[in-house]
Amino acid sequence: MPVATKLKRTSNEIPTLVSVDPTQPGETQANIHTRWHPEIPCVATIPVGQPFRVECLDYSGSQVHNDDNADDIVHLDHDSDHHLSGPFSVPGAQPGDVLEIEVLDVQPFQDHNWGYCVTAPGLGSLDDEGKETKVTKSIWDFFGNETSSRHVPHVSFQGRPHAGVLGTAPSHEILEQWVKRESELEVATSGKAGCSLPKSRGAYVGQDLPDGLREKIYREGARTSPGREHGGNIDIGLATRGSKVYLPVYIPGASLSVGDTHFCQSDGEPTTAIEMAGIVTLRVNIIPQGIHQLRMRSPMYRTSPSEPIYRDKLCFTGLSVDRDGNQTNQDGLLAYRNAAFQAMEYLESFGYSREQAYILLSAAPIESRVVATANRPNFVVSLGIPTEIFDFDILPRKDGISDEEKRKVIQGPALPSIKVNGEMPNGNGH
Amino acid sequence: MPVATKLKRTSNEIPTLVSVDPTQPGETQANIHTRWHPEIPCVATIPVGQPFRVECLDYSGSQVHNDDNADDIVHLDHDSDHHLSGPFSVPGAQPGDVLEIEVLDVQPFQDHNWGYCVTAPGLGSLDDEGKETKVTKSIWDFFGNETSSRHVPHVSFQGRPHAGVLGTAPSHEILEQWVKRESELEVATSGKAGCSLPKSRGAYVGQDLPDGLREKIYREGARTSPGREHGGNIDIGLATRGSKVYLPVYIPGASLSVGDTHFCQSDGEPTTAIEMAGIVTLRVNIIPQGIHQLRMRSPMYRTSPSEPIYRDKLCFTGLSVDRDGNQTNQDGLLAYRNAAFQAMEYLESFGYSREQAYILLSAAPIESRVVATANRPNFVVSLGIPTEIFDFDILPRKDGISDEEKRKVIQGPALPSIKVNGEMPNGNGH
Amino acid sequence: MPVATKLKRTSNEIPTLVSVDPTQPGETQANIHTRWHPEIPCVATIPVGQPFRVECLDYSGSQVHNDDNADDIVHLDHDSDHHLSGPFSVPGAQPGDVLEIEVLDVQPFQDHNWGYCVTAPGLGSLDDEGKETKVTKSIWDFFGNETSSRHVPHVSFQGRPHAGVLGTAPSHEILEQWVKRESELEVATSGKAGCSLPKSRGAYVGQDLPDGLREKIYREGARTSPGREHGGNIDIGLATRGSKVYLPVYIPGASLSVGDTHFCQSDGEPTTAIEMAGIVTLRVNIIPQGIHQLRMRSPMYRTSPSEPIYRDKLCFTGLSVDRDGNQTNQDGLLAYRNAAFQAMEYLESFGYSREQAYILLSAAPIESRVVATANRPNFVVSLGIPTEIFDFDILPRKDGISDEEKRKVIQGPALPSIKVNGEMPNGNGH
Amino acid sequence: MPVATKLKRTSNEIPTLVSVDPTQPGETQANIHTRWHPEIPCVATIPVGQPFRVECLDYSGSQVHNDDNADDIVHLDHDSDHHLSGPFSVPGAQPGDVLEIEVLDVQPFQDHNWGYCVTAPGLGSLDDEGKETKVTKSIWDFFGNETSSRHVPHVSFQGRPHAGVLGTAPSHEILEQWVKRESELEVATSGKAGCSLPKSRGAYVGQDLPDGLREKIYREGARTSPGREHGGNIDIGLATRGSKVYLPVYIPGASLSVGDTHFCQSDGEPTTAIEMAGIVTLRVNIIPQGIHQLRMRSPMYRTSPSEPIYRDKLCFTGLSVDRDGNQTNQDGLLAYRNAAFQAMEYLESFGYSREQAYILLSAAPIESRVVATANRPNFVVSLGIPTEIFDFDILPRKDGISDEEKRKVIQGPALPSIKVNGEMPNGNGH
Repeated sequence: MPVATKLKRTSNEIPTLVSVDPTQPGETQANIHTRWHPEIPCVATIPVGQPFRVECLDYSGSQVHNDDNADDIVHLDHDSDHHLSGPFSVPGAQPGDVLEIEVLDVQPFQDHNWGYCVTAPGLGSLDDEGKETKVTKSIWDFFGNETSSRHVPHVSFQGRPHAGVLGTAPSHEILEQWVKRESELEVATSGKAGCSLPKSRGAYVGQDLPDGLREKIYREGARTSPGREHGGNIDIGLATRGSKVYLPVYIPGASLSVGDTHFCQSDGEPTTAIEMAGIVTLRVNIIPQGIHQLRMRSPMYRTSPSEPIYRDKLCFTGLSVDRDGNQTNQDGLLAYRNAAFQAMEYLESFGYSREQAYILLSAAPIESRVVATANRPNFVVSLGIPTEIFDFDILPRKDGISDEEKRKVIQGPALPSIKVNGEMPNGNGH
Repeated sequence: MPVATKLKRTSNEIPTLVSVDPTQPGETQANIHTRWHPEIPCVATIPVGQPFRVECLDYSGSQVHNDDNADDIVHLDHDSDHHLSGPFSVPGAQPGDVLEIEVLDVQPFQDHNWGYCVTAPGLGSLDDEGKETKVTKSIWDFFGNETSSRHVPHVSFQGRPHAGVLGTAPSHEILEQWVKRESELEVATSGKAGCSLPKSRGAYVGQDLPDGLREKIYREGARTSPGREHGGNIDIGLATRGSKVYLPVYIPGASLSVGDTHFCQSDGEPTTAIEMAGIVTLRVNIIPQGIHQLRMRSPMYRTSPSEPIYRDKLCFTGLSVDRDGNQTNQDGLLAYRNAAFQAMEYLESFGYSREQAYILLSAAPIESRVVATANRPNFVVSLGIPTEIFDFDILPRKDGISDEEKRKVIQGPALPSIKVNGEMPNGNGH
Repeated sequence: MPVATKLKRTSNEIPTLVSVDPTQPGETQANIHTRWHPEIPCVATIPVGQPFRVECLDYSGSQVHNDDNADDIVHLDHDSDHHLSGPFSVPGAQPGDVLEIEVLDVQPFQDHNWGYCVTAPGLGSLDDEGKETKVTKSIWDFFGNETSSRHVPHVSFQGRPHAGVLGTAPSHEILEQWVKRESELEVATSGKAGCSLPKSRGAYVGQDLPDGLREKIYREGARTSPGREHGGNIDIGLATRGSKVYLPVYIPGASLSVGDTHFCQSDGEPTTAIEMAGIVTLRVNIIPQGIHQLRMRSPMYRTSPSEPIYRDKLCFTGLSVDRDGNQTNQDGLLAYRNAAFQAMEYLESFGYSREQAYILLSAAPIESRVVATANRPNFVVSLGIPTEIFDFDILPRKDGISDEEKRKVIQGPALPSIKVNGEMPNGNGH
Repeated sequence: MPVATKLKRTSNEIPTLVSVDPTQPGETQANIHTRWHPEIPCVATIPVGQPFRVECLDYSGSQVHNDDNADDIVHLDHDSDHHLSGPFSVPGAQPGDVLEIEVLDVQPFQDHNWGYCVTAPGLGSLDDEGKETKVTKSIWDFFGNETSSRHVPHVSFQGRPHAGVLGTAPSHEILEQWVKRESELEVATSGKAGCSLPKSRGAYVGQDLPDGLREKIYREGARTSPGREHGGNIDIGLATRGSKVYLPVYIPGASLSVGDTHFCQSDGEPTTAIEMAGIVTLRVNIIPQGIHQLRMRSPMYRTSPSEPIYRDKLCFTGLSVDRDGNQTNQDGLLAYRNAAFQAMEYLESFGYSREQAYILLSAAPIESRVVATANRPNFVVSLGIPTEIFDFDILPRKDGISDEEKRKVIQGPALPSIKVNGEMPNGNGH
């Protein structure tokens, strides 16, 4: 028998760069920030080419509780969105480079295995159509990779956990461009566009900072609601474990931040995803001069073999014609809304409330495709609902839906909801 | 040994409701029509619940030839789009019903197993961005369910054959609404929207008709370019064999037409699909009062287990920010265009010409998703290119693309193309 | 406007190397052969690197008719299996090379769009278990890529058409090895193995041949039932359109034959597939010295993006323990049979007859996996039935199957069947 | 603004029924057992219909270390396989019932995110073929759902974590049957079958037990190596998160045990999986009288939408002909071995060592199908390797593999291995 020396070697101790407490308010925690700004100091250094973990709060920074009451949603403060972990410096990353970010894993906290989905007037892209959206909260429990909600009966599905926000810091120049173009739009639309412009209220950097710097960041920092060229709140549902995301580097060291972890969301995510606090495992490599090499204008990503596949889908289409029958010139958002409104009404015909239908379209692994763009003046979008996620048959049939079927859904648990007549005390936004 | 009477029974003789000759001009052929109008007489009756075949011309009605010259494309007459087969009456179908149309098969003609893809200034949704699109024609050969083009090197893929157009006839009332809304848009945009309004030139009904009726149909008939609530040119790439399409019935008997067969197209189809003449096998059932039951606003469909799956995709995103840096209020078409322009530039970096890249984005089984719609003011679209369809590695890498790689692509066969300085003798449109 | 010369170029006229008439007996048709032998002259030359078509009879050579009576099955002559088209010479192919065969397409004849599935005592691998298998015939109609049978109610599915037989000619040496090893087994098992040894009866070569050569081929030619190292009757259900098959070359010119077209079969194909006459489109390339390079012992293949995917499957396992409770030493066939018998009983519990269940396990796109092989003494196989192919719910439930559900299946159409007490007038085999 | 009472409700505290320490020997830990016996007392009660967690040791009970030396493998004690957690009682479960076990999640321990794969003479199903298998250990690191090994270069893949062992306790009668049939086989094969018969050495129950009971369990308890009708070591690679497993109940309360967690394994698992300690989340329901209702003979399962899909596979086939050229009567294990040996040689041609190839065939998400069983005397198995898991091109090509390619693999890290001339100090088994 051979004799050998044992060389103990621990191969894979994955460091955690930031830890958070998902039960405590975001504004009490270190290494969290709620704005994009090039001067926010990095809180840790990424081991390039090596895996690392980052703990993340939910986007609201723990404002939402696991109970059966939507009161916290009514009072949700959107000025403090999103509570991101970081930023992290990437040694060697130079402006013009691209970060290749492997999304190795996204998980809920083991003892905090629930998330929530929100609707509110003014919040999402399916608001109105002549009907007021109620403020609602649905709690989604995580059972491994499965989720279901005590507030939305007869449905459960596998998640595709991901980080809604993955972004690099803007340079000063880029930051200015962002603010300028969004301000201009806000003016041009008399505020209807609903842009979130820089605002000290809600700004937060969980670090010791010189007063002047803090004040500057709070005053200048870009809001995190929209995804932009650097990534940010792109909310790519497909960027689940096993995928890669490519982001541009604008400042030395890149200053990567991550947060807004989701258990699942639809393509299109018309209101919120299933928002959760979570733990993200990443590995980052640098592609030198990648912005030029990849001709990068905005983020790229590569899909994962691990994305759950629901094969059988019932799909709704939407055209760019408004509900008054006016033809628009290929309004893509309208086309999306039309597909979604039709899907909502279809789900309502089974007994779901309007808000439950809205939630399903945002939370579940729904596939939304751009169908055709060359057939002027219509832009067509489709929205495919996996048939398998319901415990009843949602396919069209000759003989319609029976009252018994509807009753089954209607008599299910109620959705915590509050009517607010369109006025949210702390404003809208996401 | 038992003795038995043999009762010969032919189970499955599938009738062909319309035959065409894909080598002859559409305007010389019977049972073809190029406009939507309720008074076009039905040319055959659909055996409800039984399969039937319909032969279809390519959308142009045989104007395009299998050669290495784009001259036919320059002179393409778009006023005669699309050359549809039908209409067919569905016995028993009443206004308010829905047709469930099983797409059992779509095939090219056995001795005509090629198609084509077109680019031209003013034709598709990716035109310009400051660069003129050349008039080009690429011929795609079909090898069973595989296709490749002698004009676009180093790429081949499985098709997802489908009928670009499946539509029921509008009622007079609906026809008027269509024309009214599109005319209004055309006025409002000073013609920029590029709507195709009713026009006798190019109108065609391949039937013996009383002169007055023919003249009425030609004068009033809606153009077929845009998909509308009745279906029509929806161009759903996913509606391949094994899928189902649901369409509303507006007039007694439904008057279903079919045509514009495609061998393959991308989601979004920014210019043409791989256009072909083809044979469609359908089975139609009626869902009584389905418009109400399904809350149908526009077509629905159900996906097929037979849709080819390319799992590994490199995805590009696009935001609703224009190339001058202006922020729009969630302009979805712009987001799509941005994702596509980035993908085109990426493909060009490997040596493809701009037009070859454009063709790939329209012809190949590319997946385009609506990523997020609630993150104002950005609307985000992604566009996923299957990595497997290329015979070289298109993934991003640290060390860039070698000159040798580029040369391999560049030195491939050339794309037949003609520069026309934006002026097409017969106008643009699709 | 530019002027250009039109160079008409027909890109893709796919030649048909062999034509057959699927309504006429195989023994009356040219270019058909029913044995493997190196001296069968090639009937056509394959254009290497170019697509070509081959028309094929069903394996029985048109012995089975589309009617509701199993009499033809009782009298089926298995000595003449399989009726292959070819052989075809591959210019340049040398012993030691490998053919890369792209399966571009497999289709039924347009006017002969039906197939059949057979059960009979002694025929398949699920025969007996103490119960006699009746002689049955089920006719399967093809609706594009969908099939269903008037003899097996409440089920329909997408096919994965393929050629059950793709094989190169053996050299004399290899032919001798085959015959020797199978003869030895037949002796060793006292005929229980059921090998089909060379036999002049049923031998056929549809060519003008010198009498001596014909007699030699008929006397020596290997039977086509088993798949062997050269391919042959491997019956790879996955080798559908879009896949590639790799076969060894044993004699100069390879002498490739093809036949036994199937519309669909399960993994494991325990009795027959859905047997059909069909048209196969192939493209062949040569990998020089491929046998050594690929270390080829038996055929290889590459899967297709076009294989239909049914994602949700109910799976049954089988262990290598016999029905009397005896443990075998990892008997894989027994494990497969056990999984299949359990699946059959499960399907019978819904009202299907034993033979209908048997047919479903052989005809439908069922996935059979080798689960584990290292856990001595058990070999475990699983067999996964797609839930979606039934129009009722086949999943296990707490409250069992209602009598009404069963009645629905039982009262469906009957399967043409004949009891023969185990004796088939023309023997068994496949 | 409405006022509401907040009813704090924690929805989803998932209890952990058994905790273990993956760094400590199994024999020092409570609630672990290594034999199947009806009289092992249950250690906890399953909350029927509610999720719960169970922590599990790796199968060896922590005998294997994360280092670069195979010495621990040489001395591996297989008499103590497997170290299972439990048993757990299922209130209300009666003999004849079936447990529906939802596999909600399987994860490695967060700070123990590595596993190992083992080869050794006599261990697996691919041993020999005239070549001695070396004792090797490869350490596989887990990066979220991705794994790679410092001992097997140029390959990484997504896992499909699962519990190799999920089993209910046998009744006394069934236990006796198992022992009887395996003893008989062992006698009949003169020990060649390699059955693991009851043996006090290695038996362990981590509970306080009366001496007599402990002695009885140790003496009578069935070994855990083979999967059996109750489940046990079935090693279903597909039973990953999102799947369901159905097991029979033989004794009141069922006594369910779980263990042998795997990060990934191939279909067929010819040697070990990627063995790991792990945390399993389950939910259990009872199907009353399910054994009769489901006609259950051995375990059933339902696949998961979350199983990773690698679509493009290079497949090898194996026939039931032995390497001396003898034909067997459909020996399924031989067919599997032949497919696997060919795949191993193919991988070796790229520079992998024989053992590295063996490991890949067992650890990676390889698909093994039963191809055909009715074509006597051959049984055909195929084995499909995902092309995407390698960072180089493994597809066959005309010009063979370059020396440079091979060197890249060969010069990768070495596999810890020891030659033992077939003698393992503690015997073989798994």
